[in-house]
Amino acid sequence: MRSGDGEARTLDRTNLPALALGCGILGAGGGGNPEIGLLIAQQGVETHGPVPLADLQELPPDGLLLPCGGIGAPTVSIEKIQNGGEGQRLREAVEDLWGRPVVALMCGEIGGSNGIMPVGWAARMGLPVVDADGMGRAFPEVYQVSMELADVSPSPAVMTDERGNVLVFRSVSGRWLERMERRASIEFGGRGYSAEYVMSIEQAQRATIRGSVSLALRIGRAILEANDDPVRRLLEEVGGFRLLTGTVVDVDRRTESGFARGSVTIEGTGVDARRAVRIEFQNENLVAAVDGIVRASVPDLICVLDAASASAVTTERLRYGQRVTAVALSANPVWRSRAGLAVAGPSAFGYPFDYVAVEELHAEAS
Amino acid sequence: MRSGDGEARTLDRTNLPALALGCGILGAGGGGNPEIGLLIAQQGVETHGPVPLADLQELPPDGLLLPCGGIGAPTVSIEKIQNGGEGQRLREAVEDLWGRPVVALMCGEIGGSNGIMPVGWAARMGLPVVDADGMGRAFPEVYQVSMELADVSPSPAVMTDERGNVLVFRSVSGRWLERMERRASIEFGGRGYSAEYVMSIEQAQRATIRGSVSLALRIGRAILEANDDPVRRLLEEVGGFRLLTGTVVDVDRRTESGFARGSVTIEGTGVDARRAVRIEFQNENLVAAVDGIVRASVPDLICVLDAASASAVTTERLRYGQRVTAVALSANPVWRSRAGLAVAGPSAFGYPFDYVAVEELHAEAS
Repeated sequence: MRSGDGEARTLDRTNLPALALGCGILGAGGGGNPEIGLLIAQQGVETHGPVPLADLQELPPDGLLLPCGGIGAPTVSIEKIQNGGEGQRLREAVEDLWGRPVVALMCGEIGGSNGIMPVGWAARMGLPVVDADGMGRAFPEVYQVSMELADVSPSPAVMTDERGNVLVFRSVSGRWLERMERRASIEFGGRGYSAEYVMSIEQAQRATIRGSVSLALRIGRAILEANDDPVRRLLEEVGGFRLLTGTVVDVDRRTESGFARGSVTIEGTGVDARRAVRIEFQNENLVAAVDGIVRASVPDLICVLDAASASAVTTERLRYGQRVTAVALSANPVWRSRAGLAVAGPSAFGYPFDYVAVEELHAEAS
Repeated sequence: MRSGDGEARTLDRTNLPALALGCGILGAGGGGNPEIGLLIAQQGVETHGPVPLADLQELPPDGLLLPCGGIGAPTVSIEKIQNGGEGQRLREAVEDLWGRPVVALMCGEIGGSNGIMPVGWAARMGLPVVDADGMGRAFPEVYQVSMELADVSPSPAVMTDERGNVLVFRSVSGRWLERMERRASIEFGGRGYSAEYVMSIEQAQRATIRGSVSLALRIGRAILEANDDPVRRLLEEVGGFRLLTGTVVDVDRRTESGFARGSVTIEGTGVDARRAVRIEFQNENLVAAVDGIVRASVPDLICVLDAASASAVTTERLRYGQRVTAVALSANPVWRSRAGLAVAGPSAFGYPFDYVAVEELHAEAS
């Protein structure tokens, strides 16, 4: 995918719906339902005014950047809603720990609700959001971010809930941070809010995925402006691949260990009749197999889209009978490196096969 | 029980074995196996010298006191041993949060390993241990301390493990702190180390149970110096009650939700033939019923003792065939108040009956 177009320099009610649509696609099934993030962001900008979208170059290099978002199972996040003060509590805890002010917020992951909810927090705080994120998509685990690959320390990390509990973690590794934050999110009832890999703007310039917000906006606009076939328009815009169009015939989903885990089976219709795709997920879609053969896997993005509108169907919203199109999009190159695959490739999720890029798998299948 | 005799003003290898014996009794089955705490304390004083046992009056009123100990299931603590640096990490985190030095350590609970292990930490740090604790015994949950009754804030609390992870909790209540620390202890593998209710010496003078270490020493000495029947000698010393002497015929014990839960049944022998006592526990012994009738309950102390030596058999060490005597000791008066019973009485553990003091239950039975 090309990076963002850099047009919109302000996030407001005119472009938030496009951002939410784009975040839904980049969520690869996870990151939480973007409609909830959209509501929070819209309320924020309507009450407190638009949020500047800042390039990292525009900000003071020694300024403190707050990567933030929700953590937990998306199945829970659609029922258990924040009280609005979570972002401010994270900011206060971080400013207290670092002894200096936060100059901007960053979505830890651009995918799903987590790609847009921090806009609402930023509006309340009068701070900009930077045009970058830590994933270029959504991943289920805390340490699956580009900052981990760039050796930014995950600690101290902070976490809060809607009751006002605040936790500070100084973990020995990103993986231990994931374990501890996940347990806390379970105890909070399946959902919490956190900030990890807090860093300077200068560090962020080499450690983040740039242009993520612009990319999400561009994807959302392409879908909204499509005349007839939004899915085709999306794939043209980002250079993605259609796996199959059909009907959801089976959903196996459970909330366990703080994640939504399971699989969905989609039987093809029309040109795809007598074919089926099975997609396994852990919050996000991990692997898609068409007729038993892997056609896409993490870190590439596997998305289930409403066949008519191209809006993303997140894993917690999958249900029997939905008319959908499964597509696959290329991951940001950082995830295709050896280090990136070790953190977020198939083996990181316990799959016994090596990663093959979706472009290559598509060429084989054609 | 009368409070301590105040004789020993130094903890060293001459009196640590008596302290461990006394802590075992005051553990009421829990607090972790005192033999492990004894090993840690002995190693500490042998390497770094004796530890002063300080009265709270001897210390500067504005000095910072560190209540500390282990948290988790005692079934795990006998296999998963600390690396020795845990106390120092807790101290550093607390000094960092408060911006001033810790002047003394306090056992969060005098019962079990937790009543003696901090002596080893204090030896390494060259700090005194105060002659007080937060329970006058051992209880399973973090907020079941006299400091909670005295409105000392449990936060910020700190926690660590043998790997070097450090967590800081600012919880909305002691009960939420318990939930969050328990989850972390589970993720750490069933065992962690923590400090809560950090306070000034002045606060501790009204918020702690005084003379606990002296009391444990006095109990230990009475047992060690007994000529023939150490159990009788113990009961004389502290004014306790014998429930039954017999043989362990059933142990139902599981490690769940971060606790050792279950029950033990002891069938009487000799004068107690054809009687049986069933004791239910959650780390600590909670309720003892003789032939189906409750004869003692929290907050009073229920202890299973080796019938010959009077050393405590902690809940994780109970096993079929042991020859034991079950006894009950009166709780510190602070636990018999309305507020105390709300925090640590039978109803706090889900039992549907009201607390009756062991003295009264004993008079009924006689």
